[in-house]
Amino acid sequence: MYHFAGNVLIEDEFLRDGLQNEARGFSVAEKLHFLAGLEAAGVRRIQVGSFVHPKWVPQMANTDEVFASLTPKPGVTYTALILNMAGLDRALVAGVKHLSISVSASETHSRKNLNKSVDEARAQIASILERALAEGIAVRAGIQSALGCGFEGQIDPARALEIARSYGEIGVHEVNIADTAGLANPVQVYDLCARVREVLPAATALSLHLHDTRGLGMANMVAGLEAGVRIFDAALGGLGGCPFIPKATGNIATEDAAFALAEMGLTTGIDHRALGALTREAEITLGRTLPGRMAHIDTGETA
Amino acid sequence: MYHFAGNVLIEDEFLRDGLQNEARGFSVAEKLHFLAGLEAAGVRRIQVGSFVHPKWVPQMANTDEVFASLTPKPGVTYTALILNMAGLDRALVAGVKHLSISVSASETHSRKNLNKSVDEARAQIASILERALAEGIAVRAGIQSALGCGFEGQIDPARALEIARSYGEIGVHEVNIADTAGLANPVQVYDLCARVREVLPAATALSLHLHDTRGLGMANMVAGLEAGVRIFDAALGGLGGCPFIPKATGNIATEDAAFALAEMGLTTGIDHRALGALTREAEITLGRTLPGRMAHIDTGETA
Repeated sequence: MYHFAGNVLIEDEFLRDGLQNEARGFSVAEKLHFLAGLEAAGVRRIQVGSFVHPKWVPQMANTDEVFASLTPKPGVTYTALILNMAGLDRALVAGVKHLSISVSASETHSRKNLNKSVDEARAQIASILERALAEGIAVRAGIQSALGCGFEGQIDPARALEIARSYGEIGVHEVNIADTAGLANPVQVYDLCARVREVLPAATALSLHLHDTRGLGMANMVAGLEAGVRIFDAALGGLGGCPFIPKATGNIATEDAAFALAEMGLTTGIDHRALGALTREAEITLGRTLPGRMAHIDTGETA
Repeated sequence: MYHFAGNVLIEDEFLRDGLQNEARGFSVAEKLHFLAGLEAAGVRRIQVGSFVHPKWVPQMANTDEVFASLTPKPGVTYTALILNMAGLDRALVAGVKHLSISVSASETHSRKNLNKSVDEARAQIASILERALAEGIAVRAGIQSALGCGFEGQIDPARALEIARSYGEIGVHEVNIADTAGLANPVQVYDLCARVREVLPAATALSLHLHDTRGLGMANMVAGLEAGVRIFDAALGGLGGCPFIPKATGNIATEDAAFALAEMGLTTGIDHRALGALTREAEITLGRTLPGRMAHIDTGETA
């Protein structure tokens, strides 16, 4: 049986995993506005954007400028995603102190996403990770499609375990297991997290990136908690995934996760009502309702 | 850690908890159509309606006629909700073999719902349960607002435990714990189910009625599984709750629950794709999208 206590860190990815799929680009000022809202609501790690080629993800083209314009708030980590050495170069110029980079555990996903085999991607990432660590960057290394692949279906957990072990050997600060397509179930999440934990050095943190495609996002988060995970990715409003799919299948919503964690006795430092208000602002900006629940529920009297 | 195996029974409540909140009434023929769809998809227990006064719930006024018109299919249990002795009289005339009746663990909810205190409601229900059992009816006795109340907020678990113990003494076949307003979290669900299990006779089944108000429906179901619960209420499409609240906060969706259970290694006998098609039919009839996920997701290649 489970009882939970202590702190949980939520990394909000609204500005990256959320906005990267939106047809509407966000200006630097707009991104700074939502960044300030996330900070004010108590979010302690914010993925500000990604350093990827603007040809592929034009929504992230102003990431350098956003970093240059933001005033770091004490206690908040500002992170970004990179895919290659060029991205690391840009991140270093921007003065970013925390970075995420990942490979896919799925051969097909890796080839579609990076035009590289998993082994090629792993070889490339190793040198990027080593350089980033040598530069004093806090590095999070991810395993995409670790719990299933939209192209291949089930993925042998041995693949994720082997990648996690190599990340541990390189000395990354955190390993991130990503249910990129939202295909995981709680039993699987518990099993993989528990097994990955066993192959990682004690000092290496383990985090989970969850999507709510099949309505199992919160259940998978709880399974992660049971396996000892205390860092979760989420996105304001549950943004993310493809906006052209009905019942948009985004990330778990930061405010929903923060609320559920608090209800279960865990501390995130996040004011879910403040995030709910920010989600309703985002909905006006985006012109549609987002999938998160708490932004649409009055919890005034009976929360 | 949890590994699950074996069978889970889902009671579908689309025709009762789902339709009772709809402005649009369903004819006997329409109800029989959805009933047939549920049967064909492998649902093994169906709550067909309730025997309540048509002044209060006009959507259920044709429940007698639906029972008179249905052809029982082997292996399927057809059940109904009753609130009082008049309802039991009607159910007996209709030849119903399985009934649900419940009280609320919340004083305020009990008074608003039945105009009775919890003690008055318990005294009334005891005589109804005894008569139903004497008539050879399989009886499920429920505890509404067992995990929180929309009016009172938190409810002392001792209240639900005491009600469950008395149900066990009366000799009901099943005790149902209901998160009527969808306020529960997984830690709480696990705790209460484990404690209720301890006060019930071994032969008394325990079931859970969950709403997905805060997106925790599936997580609460998994917590129930961990506590040993193997009977869950759900509704086709996730219908239920008030249709006038944005992001309708219905029951957990039968097809979503069946899919998630299958993914975790449990057997329900339900074809979630067939239910998804039935949900899309219900959406056309009701003129709006329902909150369930699986009806809107193509799982053809990668499920």
